[in-house]
Amino acid sequence: MEEIPLSEHPGRYADRGVFVCFEGGEGAGKSTQAAALEAWLTSEGYAVRHTFEPGDTEVGRRVRQIVLDPATGSLADRTEALLYAADKAEHVETVVLPALARGEVVVTDRYVDSTLAYQGAGRTLDVAEVERVARWATGDLRPHLTVLLDLEPSAGLERFEGRDRIEQESLGFHQRVRASFLALAAADPQHYLVLDARCPVEELTAAVRARVEPLLGQATR
Amino acid sequence: MEEIPLSEHPGRYADRGVFVCFEGGEGAGKSTQAAALEAWLTSEGYAVRHTFEPGDTEVGRRVRQIVLDPATGSLADRTEALLYAADKAEHVETVVLPALARGEVVVTDRYVDSTLAYQGAGRTLDVAEVERVARWATGDLRPHLTVLLDLEPSAGLERFEGRDRIEQESLGFHQRVRASFLALAAADPQHYLVLDARCPVEELTAAVRARVEPLLGQATR
Repeated sequence: MEEIPLSEHPGRYADRGVFVCFEGGEGAGKSTQAAALEAWLTSEGYAVRHTFEPGDTEVGRRVRQIVLDPATGSLADRTEALLYAADKAEHVETVVLPALARGEVVVTDRYVDSTLAYQGAGRTLDVAEVERVARWATGDLRPHLTVLLDLEPSAGLERFEGRDRIEQESLGFHQRVRASFLALAAADPQHYLVLDARCPVEELTAAVRARVEPLLGQATR
Repeated sequence: MEEIPLSEHPGRYADRGVFVCFEGGEGAGKSTQAAALEAWLTSEGYAVRHTFEPGDTEVGRRVRQIVLDPATGSLADRTEALLYAADKAEHVETVVLPALARGEVVVTDRYVDSTLAYQGAGRTLDVAEVERVARWATGDLRPHLTVLLDLEPSAGLERFEGRDRIEQESLGFHQRVRASFLALAAADPQHYLVLDARCPVEELTAAVRARVEPLLGQATR
């Protein structure tokens, strides 16, 4: 990757296939919306690869076990960021890029923004360095569209019991995460759709569909 | 970390404790020499923490399983580099730095140079980016002394059967690794001792001891 300051780096966008990402805090409804998008695309005859981070490779599953297992105890912040980056590198190389090359629509639950929001803004690390590592891991491949399901953290967390180590973080942590997601979206409106996650499911589904439909010229049926 | 080009970055050296690293290809005798150094230091009354990469933490053991297990199959190059970096971050934060802070002598079998030699020079990645990631992972902490046990790869590999994925690489790969180790040592003679691994074990042990002894003023007995 050239030595361009990352804030000015334009990113790489696949010229075949469509790459859609769902981001947002816990309980915002990412899985529901991703599944609805997949169902619609499939009914329209598109090949869809529904995937997720961390974890949708053998390496990713093992990384996920390390990071999310309460038994691992407290990981150093850099360790966690680097494990997520390793998952990302494997995911892009072995899942995302091959599917895009076949002209498929790749729908991922979480991607680089989650790393920036959770590991960067959420903790004590220098965000520019975390971003550099994550961009390097992914070859700076970016989604054509990121759908941010925005939700006040106290609302999202009510939907879950504290299931794993990440979700046991404080409310303040989740508020910083939310602010990071919103800032990333605000900086690049062309590639983001921000939705209020409290809206009815069907309204959200329709809004996502409206933004994805014009992108489908690059996808194969 | 400041934005200094890494080739000009001076690194950080602990001002308490002594950090000694053994590097070299497979079969060069690192374990033997590290054990001999540990035995001597212990007999002299120093507290020694003998450690290794990858693997001497719970995270590291799991990373090691992923990277070295032939069942994992072919990892993306960036995945491998990032997994090693995660191991390194955890190792420095939870093993090396606490031991140095107690004034101990930390003797490690492999460190950043192995990453640069194996993941950088050995494969297809941009070495400057691999170095940036590894330096970030370790907070750029460097050994006071790195002992490079240099050995022509064809000699070293004869001592082993192909035990794991790394050791199954081609001879050409191991020759590139050796050249990388030698170049790193040549660039910073103050912090390196290069030894011909074919010399008698006792000669090597004596040479290591002679270079370590003057550093021990920072260590506690």
